[in-house]
Amino acid sequence: MDTNLINYKQVLKNRPYGIPDDNTWELVKTKIEDLKDGEMLIQQDYISLDPAMRGWMNDVRSYIPPVQIGEVMRAGSLGRVIRVSGKTPFKVGDYVSGWGGVQSYIITKGENFYKINPDRSSLTSYLGALGMPGMTAYFGILEVGEIKEGETVLVSGAAGAVGSIVGQIAKIKGCNVVGIAGGKSKSKYVVESLGFDSCIDYKEANLVNELKKYCPKGIDVYFDNVGGEILDTALVFLRKKARVVICGAISQYNSTGNIIGPKNYLSLLVNRASMRGMIVLDYAAEYGVAMKQISEWIQEGRIVHKEDVYEGIENFRDVFLRLFTGDKIGKLILKISK
Amino acid sequence: MDTNLINYKQVLKNRPYGIPDDNTWELVKTKIEDLKDGEMLIQQDYISLDPAMRGWMNDVRSYIPPVQIGEVMRAGSLGRVIRVSGKTPFKVGDYVSGWGGVQSYIITKGENFYKINPDRSSLTSYLGALGMPGMTAYFGILEVGEIKEGETVLVSGAAGAVGSIVGQIAKIKGCNVVGIAGGKSKSKYVVESLGFDSCIDYKEANLVNELKKYCPKGIDVYFDNVGGEILDTALVFLRKKARVVICGAISQYNSTGNIIGPKNYLSLLVNRASMRGMIVLDYAAEYGVAMKQISEWIQEGRIVHKEDVYEGIENFRDVFLRLFTGDKIGKLILKISK
Repeated sequence: MDTNLINYKQVLKNRPYGIPDDNTWELVKTKIEDLKDGEMLIQQDYISLDPAMRGWMNDVRSYIPPVQIGEVMRAGSLGRVIRVSGKTPFKVGDYVSGWGGVQSYIITKGENFYKINPDRSSLTSYLGALGMPGMTAYFGILEVGEIKEGETVLVSGAAGAVGSIVGQIAKIKGCNVVGIAGGKSKSKYVVESLGFDSCIDYKEANLVNELKKYCPKGIDVYFDNVGGEILDTALVFLRKKARVVICGAISQYNSTGNIIGPKNYLSLLVNRASMRGMIVLDYAAEYGVAMKQISEWIQEGRIVHKEDVYEGIENFRDVFLRLFTGDKIGKLILKISK
Repeated sequence: MDTNLINYKQVLKNRPYGIPDDNTWELVKTKIEDLKDGEMLIQQDYISLDPAMRGWMNDVRSYIPPVQIGEVMRAGSLGRVIRVSGKTPFKVGDYVSGWGGVQSYIITKGENFYKINPDRSSLTSYLGALGMPGMTAYFGILEVGEIKEGETVLVSGAAGAVGSIVGQIAKIKGCNVVGIAGGKSKSKYVVESLGFDSCIDYKEANLVNELKKYCPKGIDVYFDNVGGEILDTALVFLRKKARVVICGAISQYNSTGNIIGPKNYLSLLVNRASMRGMIVLDYAAEYGVAMKQISEWIQEGRIVHKEDVYEGIENFRDVFLRLFTGDKIGKLILKISK
């Protein structure tokens, strides 16, 4: 055994009240244990930072159990198999993605990991357009949103990991696509690089006026990543039989008061519209189909993806908080290998 | 012409702010005009009083245009053809139901009226279980709620015109049915007369505790007639893939402040659940099927219906307000013929 290998891990120390602070996680050093038969040692290169992680820190009943105090912070990850013992599903040198958590190494038998092909697309894209965000976008807009050609689709968090792919898929399917993003440079990116028909900078513009302008017939599908007032305003513009996809509510995740409920929800009644929540894990059996399709679209230049990569496991908290300040474009990733 | 016939009508005088008051409607007397060719004179016996009427009084874009100031108040009605001119769709003596408004007579060519059979069921049942409330219940719980045998169904406004039928249909379909109603006598009626498995008196009981008791596995379908805090609490108990049918929000219709939005709406996300609005008018083409089915269930004794009938067009406002005070059981009807 190479006893020089040290595992750095971000462990949940205290459940945050509101925004995670200095006492939320602790960076812990441990030695790497010896492998048992059937186990692999994976050196993790990249950690996926996602808004959903904030939800996993609350001690509430949800779609997966909360991260417990003292546990490594749960996160998607991507790394290389560097050591194996006995018969294992992957071999040394394989690149794999899975739920490795915020730590530099993980020992696993390979459950919930899958092999990726670094020659087919960039490594980081497997945490973005070809990872959970891409899967969420694909199943969210196609299977929950049920978009049809010619419809008007509104996407919040349009410059984000999920929203950026949602809007591009909707464009491929022939929709009129309007994004909502925070700031001038993001809005410019959404239109000029991602090819949305228009993008509203919610920090500067009057949302109601802009929606009147860009969605003159109203909204057929609203893909919501943010919740709060933006959801509430979007509801006013629903067309008959509109669909609202509830994918996230990033504006509310650090809330210490009551969640803001959509006071215009009766627009669902008047317009016979629906609002449906989605969890990407439900579509796991079909990820292969979606990855193949998105990968083709990337190769054809019809889908653009961007990862915003920061370095250093010690910077985990600071980088994670960029999700909530909006200070990033595209998929937020932490590089932790040297 | 019999010039002694006088039409009494309740005309919208001022749009109400909050609860309709003495200045909202005006009782106006007019002479009956002569019939033109193809027209019929209908003497109205019964007026249907429905929560949706409150919405039609607001000057906002909705699924039908608002009632205009100076117009007869819109309402469903039931009456007899007493005079015809030329070729008409119904003959003298026919009983018909339609949108006659709050007035004692109406002259019409018969658009939006249909003939009913007084030998088949009581006259008033055609405004209740065999009228709009029955249609709303039927399509709402079966087509929007998509109930399946063995599921747990929660119904608010359980003693009301719609809720009472919703729950009975759900029982026929083999569901565990829990009602919510206001007051001890209503709750007793819901269980003992309507056959719900249980009923929660929201005025007395702790809703959370009662829902834990009666819905131990959670709620598969919530049929919402009331909105507000009851909706919010119900959301907490949704099971995976649950459906919330938004049929009404009577707790909010007279609100002068902001509507209360369901702050627990993220339960839709966690549980991959949906919330869908419905308007019964969308199902007009299928009313015949529903009427036949409900009528059979009534004859088989599997559906019980109750109409709460008050008298006098001059009492319209007082009787109408019983919808919001809850001071009635079953379908609220105003009898206006002597």
